[in-house]
Amino acid sequence: MQIQFLGTGAGMPSKQRNTTATALKLLDERGTFWMFDCGEATQHQILHTTLKPRKLEKLFLTHLHGDHIYGIPGLLSSRSFLGGGEPLTIYGPKGIKAWIDLTLSTSSTYLQYPLTVIEIEDGIIFEDNEFIVEAKLLEHVIPCFGYKVTQKPLPKELLIEKTDALGVPRGPLLKQLKEGHDVELEDGRIVTSEEVTGEQKNGFQVTILGDTRFCENSIKLSLGADIVVHEATFDQTTAELARQYGHSTIIDAATVCEQAGAKHLIVNHISARFLPSHIKEMVHQVAHFDFPVYVADDFSEFDWTNGVLKQIN
Amino acid sequence: MQIQFLGTGAGMPSKQRNTTATALKLLDERGTFWMFDCGEATQHQILHTTLKPRKLEKLFLTHLHGDHIYGIPGLLSSRSFLGGGEPLTIYGPKGIKAWIDLTLSTSSTYLQYPLTVIEIEDGIIFEDNEFIVEAKLLEHVIPCFGYKVTQKPLPKELLIEKTDALGVPRGPLLKQLKEGHDVELEDGRIVTSEEVTGEQKNGFQVTILGDTRFCENSIKLSLGADIVVHEATFDQTTAELARQYGHSTIIDAATVCEQAGAKHLIVNHISARFLPSHIKEMVHQVAHFDFPVYVADDFSEFDWTNGVLKQIN
Ligand SMILES: [Zn+2]
Ligand SMILES: [Zn+2]
Repeated sequence: MQIQFLGTGAGMPSKQRNTTATALKLLDERGTFWMFDCGEATQHQILHTTLKPRKLEKLFLTHLHGDHIYGIPGLLSSRSFLGGGEPLTIYGPKGIKAWIDLTLSTSSTYLQYPLTVIEIEDGIIFEDNEFIVEAKLLEHVIPCFGYKVTQKPLPKELLIEKTDALGVPRGPLLKQLKEGHDVELEDGRIVTSEEVTGEQKNGFQVTILGDTRFCENSIKLSLGADIVVHEATFDQTTAELARQYGHSTIIDAATVCEQAGAKHLIVNHISARFLPSHIKEMVHQVAHFDFPVYVADDFSEFDWTNGVLKQIN
Repeated sequence: MQIQFLGTGAGMPSKQRNTTATALKLLDERGTFWMFDCGEATQHQILHTTLKPRKLEKLFLTHLHGDHIYGIPGLLSSRSFLGGGEPLTIYGPKGIKAWIDLTLSTSSTYLQYPLTVIEIEDGIIFEDNEFIVEAKLLEHVIPCFGYKVTQKPLPKELLIEKTDALGVPRGPLLKQLKEGHDVELEDGRIVTSEEVTGEQKNGFQVTILGDTRFCENSIKLSLGADIVVHEATFDQTTAELARQYGHSTIIDAATVCEQAGAKHLIVNHISARFLPSHIKEMVHQVAHFDFPVYVADDFSEFDWTNGVLKQIN
């Protein structure tokens, strides 16, 4: 799994940062990527990555402010033009469906793939054999959701040298053992799943929050997360503005992580008032927290392998 | 007057060409600029020019395909955020108003300036003391307008050395002479406007056409124009596709200019199939026409001064 930031600015594009979009790359896990928010020109940003629009499987929207949704129409139509026939599902607050419908019909855009738009409320909004996605309302000036993506525990590995040693015949019994069932051999011996399978491997938990002031639901969604992506529109010196506009400082973001016992923090949605030279100072403000904090730039990419987070771009 | 191309591609953005937007810079004439079409990320393109969104006075839309309108919402809200209080008027086909209204309300965007959206039909759609804008329906797969911008003849210059020589007193008589009226002096002599004013200077005529196949109305709108901006999505080798998709070849564009007696042709809306290396070949296909033909790139800029067109970027 990798997380790549396609836009890390706030409100308006600047030469340094585009408006918000974050890709959760699940190419190894399911051959697709998911995206959180889609500011204007996200498809332009994608042109400079290895992401293929047809591999976009799910788009989760935190809220309906323009800097988080104005890139949707262009991405939807280019995905169609580029010949992706796979279905796409969009999850977002009430109002998104009517807007997408009118936008596509006004521009005479006919998508060559099935598009489903789901208007969500708090709770589990998606679950399959591999993943669960939970949404909770945060505290912004308009309804805004945060999302927690939980990868389910990975299937236990069957230790074939052990089943061989115990004389379990190759065939259907192995499948039962792998799936957690104990089996009886022809000679009457019992072989337990426990003794012939490897350790349970947990999946990852990634929490991606939208625009919000410091709030209880951010903490709930971040409980025990491996990675939290939290906005930091402001810093300590501009904390008053954060309160006023329904945003967070980088310290708010770190406090959420701390109280939730999360392991890594990546902040995005950085106000254009902070020039690249100021970022070091922002990071300094959270140096006393005892987990790593990264400030994402456009195209920053993080890899998560075997429980280790590494910035690879 | 200058014309700057902000996006010269067709259908989708590529690394070379953004989707359509063309700025008509009237900073000397009226302290503003006008724009024709506004594909996604036009505001991002503007970041790389000297254009200021608050100076955008009028936006003319040729048609409602996404590659011509998806940049509107972002530009409207950034223009507001950047503090332009001056009114803005958008002209476009039926359907544009409902989409802009729903887009702004869905994204809780409140503009800090008066926005007027006018759904047009064929005819003169704007006129003041200095300019006339005429629209005509072209032939595309959906309703698409072309526009002709006519600058009215410039006020004649009063030749003050001549009025002095004739003994016309400084004062209100001069104003009458400048405005074309003959006057009688106190001694009974008649001074005609004709003898004390310079030559009539014509304004310019610029025709900016939308997506279209070769058609009669393109020619009508281009009659006698100083500059015609015409799409050339295709070239001679792909002429069949042009017919099929309601587009033009570069030869279609040049033929329109020739039949209209227009003086300069600039083509835009170039398919991404044509790499930079192919552009020379496109120009070669129209070498036998006896007026200059330019293929616009993103950020190409042309200056029109005293009847002379010069590419300055
Ligand atoms: Zn935002
Ligand atoms: Zn087009």
